[in-house]
Amino acid sequence: MEKTIEQAKGILSRAELLEGWQGHRRLTRRVIEAFPEKEFFEFRIGGMRPFADMVKELLAIAEPGLRELVEGEKQEFDEHRDYGNKKADLLTQWDASTEAIDTLWEKLTDEKFSETVVLFGQYEFPVLWHIFYFIDNEIHHRGQGYVYLRALGIEPPLFYER
Amino acid sequence: MEKTIEQAKGILSRAELLEGWQGHRRLTRRVIEAFPEKEFFEFRIGGMRPFADMVKELLAIAEPGLRELVEGEKQEFDEHRDYGNKKADLLTQWDASTEAIDTLWEKLTDEKFSETVVLFGQYEFPVLWHIFYFIDNEIHHRGQGYVYLRALGIEPPLFYER
Repeated sequence: MEKTIEQAKGILSRAELLEGWQGHRRLTRRVIEAFPEKEFFEFRIGGMRPFADMVKELLAIAEPGLRELVEGEKQEFDEHRDYGNKKADLLTQWDASTEAIDTLWEKLTDEKFSETVVLFGQYEFPVLWHIFYFIDNEIHHRGQGYVYLRALGIEPPLFYER
Repeated sequence: MEKTIEQAKGILSRAELLEGWQGHRRLTRRVIEAFPEKEFFEFRIGGMRPFADMVKELLAIAEPGLRELVEGEKQEFDEHRDYGNKKADLLTQWDASTEAIDTLWEKLTDEKFSETVVLFGQYEFPVLWHIFYFIDNEIHHRGQGYVYLRALGIEPPLFYER
């Protein structure tokens, strides 16, 4: 592996990573929309959280996390923030975060992605891996949302449509 | 966006992408291990497939898909391949694919990741996005496996441990 560690970081651009992330966010938004109002906040399987609570976790990570990575000012990780008690309230916040992510992204340079940063006061990784974690964690919980929808007899959005 | 499209692909190396992928594969392996033998092949929610069938899909994509991307020879997408009817048989195939992926990866160049390729006779994307799709699809189905485990009263492996 010695040899490969020296490789140039030559296979992904900032713009491509953002487009990939926003594509996932568009799909997650459609998964939220697919839930009936009541079940979004209440339906659960095996002692897990309702999908609304998973979405609150995603909201607590994406924009605040990127803001801390970009601006350096420590953000609080708060997955119980009150956005209102309707699905539409969480969708409004989702869209606001989507816009904020686009704006914050413009301040990132290629060099920044290699910088090791402590996020939310405890997670220490290079910026690139923080962002991959944000995305992977969203895919992970969204996949769980798919099971909830199927258990409710609802056809989820197509996974490959972004 | 015009400006950003011109960006250098400067934030991720081949070695890093492989390490990220293999990290996910190690976690998926632990999720497979966490299933009881019978439930791995039979337990399902909401008309979805048992986790064993999802794993067969992942096996049908990862090594054969990467082989076609690297070697150019068209591979058949077969998610019903017979690996044997025990969890240990699928784990054996999982490990063989893990090794094959490492070996195939050595033949990839940075330039290759930008090449647009038709995979399994129907999916046309740049190589980079095929590989991201392999990984994202694995995270997606593994997340569903987490719900199955929770529904079975089994604590899944920690998501962030790779």
